[in-house]
Amino acid sequence: MSQQTRFLLNESDIPRYWYNAVADSPVAPAPVLNPQTKEPVTPEFLSALFPMELIMQEVSSDRFIEIPEEVREIYKLYRPTPLMRATRLEKALGTPAHIYYKYEGASPSGSHKLNTAVPQAFYNKREGTKALTTETGAGQWGTALAISCSFFDMPLEVYMVKVSFNQKPYRRFLMEAYNAQVFASPTNLTHSGRSILAQDPDSPGSLGIAISEAVEVAALSNGQKKYSLGSVLNHVLTHQSVIGEEALKQMDMAGEYPDVVIGCVGGGSNFAGIAYPFLRENLRNGQRTRLLAVEPNATPSLTRGVYDFDYGDTAKMAPIVKMHTLGSDFIPAPIHAGGLRYHGMAPSLCSFYDQGLIEAVAVPQLATFEAGLLFAKTEGILPAPESSHAIRAAIDEALQAKENGEKRVILFNLSGHGNFDLSSYNAYLNGELVNYEFPEHQIQGIRDRLPMAQQAQVA
Amino acid sequence: MSQQTRFLLNESDIPRYWYNAVADSPVAPAPVLNPQTKEPVTPEFLSALFPMELIMQEVSSDRFIEIPEEVREIYKLYRPTPLMRATRLEKALGTPAHIYYKYEGASPSGSHKLNTAVPQAFYNKREGTKALTTETGAGQWGTALAISCSFFDMPLEVYMVKVSFNQKPYRRFLMEAYNAQVFASPTNLTHSGRSILAQDPDSPGSLGIAISEAVEVAALSNGQKKYSLGSVLNHVLTHQSVIGEEALKQMDMAGEYPDVVIGCVGGGSNFAGIAYPFLRENLRNGQRTRLLAVEPNATPSLTRGVYDFDYGDTAKMAPIVKMHTLGSDFIPAPIHAGGLRYHGMAPSLCSFYDQGLIEAVAVPQLATFEAGLLFAKTEGILPAPESSHAIRAAIDEALQAKENGEKRVILFNLSGHGNFDLSSYNAYLNGELVNYEFPEHQIQGIRDRLPMAQQAQVA
Repeated sequence: MSQQTRFLLNESDIPRYWYNAVADSPVAPAPVLNPQTKEPVTPEFLSALFPMELIMQEVSSDRFIEIPEEVREIYKLYRPTPLMRATRLEKALGTPAHIYYKYEGASPSGSHKLNTAVPQAFYNKREGTKALTTETGAGQWGTALAISCSFFDMPLEVYMVKVSFNQKPYRRFLMEAYNAQVFASPTNLTHSGRSILAQDPDSPGSLGIAISEAVEVAALSNGQKKYSLGSVLNHVLTHQSVIGEEALKQMDMAGEYPDVVIGCVGGGSNFAGIAYPFLRENLRNGQRTRLLAVEPNATPSLTRGVYDFDYGDTAKMAPIVKMHTLGSDFIPAPIHAGGLRYHGMAPSLCSFYDQGLIEAVAVPQLATFEAGLLFAKTEGILPAPESSHAIRAAIDEALQAKENGEKRVILFNLSGHGNFDLSSYNAYLNGELVNYEFPEHQIQGIRDRLPMAQQAQVA
Repeated sequence: MSQQTRFLLNESDIPRYWYNAVADSPVAPAPVLNPQTKEPVTPEFLSALFPMELIMQEVSSDRFIEIPEEVREIYKLYRPTPLMRATRLEKALGTPAHIYYKYEGASPSGSHKLNTAVPQAFYNKREGTKALTTETGAGQWGTALAISCSFFDMPLEVYMVKVSFNQKPYRRFLMEAYNAQVFASPTNLTHSGRSILAQDPDSPGSLGIAISEAVEVAALSNGQKKYSLGSVLNHVLTHQSVIGEEALKQMDMAGEYPDVVIGCVGGGSNFAGIAYPFLRENLRNGQRTRLLAVEPNATPSLTRGVYDFDYGDTAKMAPIVKMHTLGSDFIPAPIHAGGLRYHGMAPSLCSFYDQGLIEAVAVPQLATFEAGLLFAKTEGILPAPESSHAIRAAIDEALQAKENGEKRVILFNLSGHGNFDLSSYNAYLNGELVNYEFPEHQIQGIRDRLPMAQQAQVA
């Protein structure tokens, strides 16, 4: 009997609702604060950056949010995505575990990012936004938003971290093919960019700086341009829930239910996308699936950061949120999983982690490349280095199951392919990559540097 | 009512048989000739290059050839591939035509080439081959064979056209990630390579030269190594028939039948893959679908070449076949659709063209990039420059239908994505690409230079 490998759904199975996990949180979400006043943000403040519909989704306590028909029409280009059983990987590991993965990399943008890029472009278009601004690191997010903007005939400015801009010209060319304008950040087009360049003309840039630039351009545009973010915020995580909703149905087709669900985390959106619908089943329907977030040990915000209010960006222009953070001035080591090099983490995910509802583990760089290549050689797909963090953890779970002689059903999110990461793979194969120890000293005294430190001492 | 966009089949719909169109040809195939003796090849000659099962398939007159279960197991990683209705492209063109495309680019290798790479690696492994050799131009074929060889734990040597080796390092890194050894051809490892380098130490290489090198290494290995070819030969085209067999079922799901089926042609395999099953329906079941092969006007072997016996490679080591050819010494212009830069064409396809059973058109480079970008901006997927030749013709058919005010059902093969072709897109967007006129003088007197010219004069 041959084993079924791919579990495919029909167009009619594309979810009609996004799932907003905050609605099921036992703990109410912390307020989002204005970076200037440090008071809870007003809709006016947010509306300089986001269209009203996304602001409403950001603060919504509704469990389900209806997906507009126009968005579902575009989802049809690549959704539902396949759920795969990794039988060849299982065999290579000699494990009794069953390993499943949800593959988001066959979308036109090559990753899960399109799931939120499409509705963000759609709502902005509907509300009359004239252009969008955003940042991108490795380029997965910028590519997804560029494609979505081309669908809705919406101009897009992308502030791309300079080191990636130079190292990944093909990512830039790809965004330009969809008509996006791409700038190497820090630029001299913004106050934030110029102030960084004044201190360090050779600054390689960072996600934190690029966010500052994109936010500034939108904030100073008199409502003509809005800003679009690819992770961290709650509406972004909500949009990604289509991944987990489909996976629930597909695991049912496979006749199994996962013991553990795994995703990599940078800002948290692909992990939340696959895990939150399973979290709901834990909270509401008595399931006991472990939910495991995997971060690089070079930017271990969940496992090593502090849980407190912090800025989302370097120039302190983005809202202050309560999250596990390494500090908005944290400079991540140059790991090749560029999408995970962020100092903070989605507030909802941090709250669930703080409540003990999800687990986290940090893994070193070399072990993720080893896992990614084993996956490529057995399952065929070369994964993005970000996704290889999830693969590493899935393999470790499968090996543990082997050691224990126990069946374990593992599901992970293969959030993207590695077609634009080949210089990284080449460096790994040439022995040029290293592991990074977490720079302990960088977070010493961090609490005193947090935006609410003074207030906390007063209170 | 929302229009259905994707037509998906289940694993059980993966074809169980390949279709060998030669069995239905009204004209018997011309013999394949030994390049030294110019007599019909013997099994001994071929067995230095290919495993016996593939030789049997090459000369088979069976209509259907059973797909081994081990091959179908790997097909399950990405097959059946989706059939898509390009509604957003239709709208952009304002055409009453219905445009469908079969998308082969979501396979782990990013193109249709895996369909034949998997069985070629499988049969070689089963017959005890110790290593495979092959050539690659743009890298789609080399990547597919590298992945397939990693599945079957088979070493692979890839002779990659030097200009591509230098211009497309990421393609090389990708093959190396799957453990293939990649050499810049011409190398100094072979007689063929050394003789080219002796004439021109800076030779950029060509597919014809790379084939000579790969063939030579296999031929001189005392049966240890065999050679693997990604197009042209009949067994390769037969393997690709899974594309068209699935598309027949999927068009049925869509409730339509194509008026025209379109594919780009270099060696002919992706076009044959989608078109031959529809040719069978024309020949045996009274359908009248037009089958349209699209070639670059820089290498117009079907529309401008001569139909006669010619060598498959530059060093005249590969078998002589009857085909439409520009001459084995033809040097194609440096168009960016590297996979189409070949002087000849699959013999079976040439025979069908000669019989008037298929049509051909040649298109200029700039029009294909324009078409590819329009496709990307409407349908999301950035196509390979090779596939953009099919898109160009599909758009032209749709525009003609618009002009005539007629409904026309168009199906084309989107054989691969363009993730490794971004320097080409960037060059196009910067206005650096040009059209090439066909170098008429290169084929003047070609008949006198063909291998059988002397024999023909004698006869």
